[in-house]
Amino acid sequence: MSRIAYFGPQGTFTEQAARRLAADDELFPVETISAALTAVRKGEAAGACVPVENSVEGAVTATLDGLAEDAPLVAVAEELLAVHFSVLTRDDVDTVRTVASHPHALAQVRQWLAANLPQARTVVASSTAAAAVAVQRGEYDAAVAAPVAVEHYPLRVLATGVADVPDARTRFLLLRPPGTLPGPTGHDRTSIVAAAANRTGALAELLTELAFRGINLTRLDARPIKGNFGLYRFFIDFEGHVIEPRIGDALAALRRRCNNVRFLGSHPRADGVAATIEQGAANQDFVNAADWVAAVRRGELA
Amino acid sequence: MSRIAYFGPQGTFTEQAARRLAADDELFPVETISAALTAVRKGEAAGACVPVENSVEGAVTATLDGLAEDAPLVAVAEELLAVHFSVLTRDDVDTVRTVASHPHALAQVRQWLAANLPQARTVVASSTAAAAVAVQRGEYDAAVAAPVAVEHYPLRVLATGVADVPDARTRFLLLRPPGTLPGPTGHDRTSIVAAAANRTGALAELLTELAFRGINLTRLDARPIKGNFGLYRFFIDFEGHVIEPRIGDALAALRRRCNNVRFLGSHPRADGVAATIEQGAANQDFVNAADWVAAVRRGELA
Repeated sequence: MSRIAYFGPQGTFTEQAARRLAADDELFPVETISAALTAVRKGEAAGACVPVENSVEGAVTATLDGLAEDAPLVAVAEELLAVHFSVLTRDDVDTVRTVASHPHALAQVRQWLAANLPQARTVVASSTAAAAVAVQRGEYDAAVAAPVAVEHYPLRVLATGVADVPDARTRFLLLRPPGTLPGPTGHDRTSIVAAAANRTGALAELLTELAFRGINLTRLDARPIKGNFGLYRFFIDFEGHVIEPRIGDALAALRRRCNNVRFLGSHPRADGVAATIEQGAANQDFVNAADWVAAVRRGELA
Repeated sequence: MSRIAYFGPQGTFTEQAARRLAADDELFPVETISAALTAVRKGEAAGACVPVENSVEGAVTATLDGLAEDAPLVAVAEELLAVHFSVLTRDDVDTVRTVASHPHALAQVRQWLAANLPQARTVVASSTAAAAVAVQRGEYDAAVAAPVAVEHYPLRVLATGVADVPDARTRFLLLRPPGTLPGPTGHDRTSIVAAAANRTGALAELLTELAFRGINLTRLDARPIKGNFGLYRFFIDFEGHVIEPRIGDALAALRRRCNNVRFLGSHPRADGVAATIEQGAANQDFVNAADWVAAVRRGELA
């Protein structure tokens, strides 16, 4: 059993993801995403569980920026959670007059609150779990929280599966120091971050290296470097595993093109979607082509 | 004088941006970004001022998603504000024991608070302006707020220019219904949103259309459509004005490639950076080339 840091506090969606990603490990919450990454870099944790993107709110910039700088970390697994909240209250509450939660959570249940608790005033809290604690203490009548919150804060469950956008999802990563990679499965995701040259067409060229090898992108985020809008780095996720010949070939091309490419991991996709393989771009095609060149060099084929 | 809606409440950075972008107009705050866009679409406001990206927090997803759907709106101007906070308190406060603000603002001044108000506990508020109101009411000792807040909530200014990341910037847009465009200046930005086909290489092709015409990207955001991770649309900003031949040529090519391209505006860049023009990709080159083809068709040149 090893110790895994997660972005806390206890009782949030990140803890829920960490329980699935590291079921047999000892989990401990830390205050910020940055602190979770630091715990792994300093050897205080064997891994860290943090959110990386939400389908409504977008990329989690603290995770992306934290992966691009300091000592490298790699994602070895991911988890996808539906952002469906539970509404929690106390047994002694008859009419809910105040509902507390993190502003992002309140924004995602606005319509539900208007329809189901129209008399309730919303109050912001520093996290969904902090809202549950405040309800326990009697400060507010109800909290909008992650389902896992009731395991830490025994409250009455007023509603479950609450979400204005029913398809809203958050993706979480389990990060470790570089080491043994998870094996390829045919439904993997590889992630990199690259600082492309600051000139016209630089990003188009990077993406064309992937497209020409028939590699399907799954996500692209441009983030300003050092917090200003002058220079960008690109976080690119695509189908496939670095162990595959077609992916290794693409990564080598990106490495030639960019001063600064960092590998952020290859691991199975949580949604299990298999990689699209274009005509002439299968691993065997790459192997056969390399074999043919080798044979040409030996003078055996032409 | 016309009425301009801005994402409120009063006393935030968005009001500060609105005052610069629509100095002669009547400004009124609305509760959400979506409400600001709706006010323009319904004709209740002549324009709307909303944030579109922050260099630390990333894209403002409510603005992007709101521009891609419903009736078209176009950006006619932008403003860039340094995210430098003021710390406000009351005259009767000797020692600051509580500091309130929006969670994003607290995250951006964490180091400053640790160094300058180490004894103070942080408390979350629904906005930086709500924090100032709570300090006025005596609920907390200090608020981290936008500089403009003191004009609405007379408080003592304890510190100005507070920011852990000194280069942090937010960009704001002034949006109007489609109509007369601002004239080209040589330092313009054009914005579009396009839903590329969901197949390998689709985004690389879009960007190559721009790159081959020597057009420099300034921003790219991929956003899932309808809040799920299956299908994406791309928000692309690039240098130039739609009135320019080179930009019109590129937009026509993107229109051919995508089922769904929406023009989101051409307007001067707030930072005044002039467009990069590549060899053979100036407007005169496009005009000369079209003239030559016309002459060939008339049988005058070959």
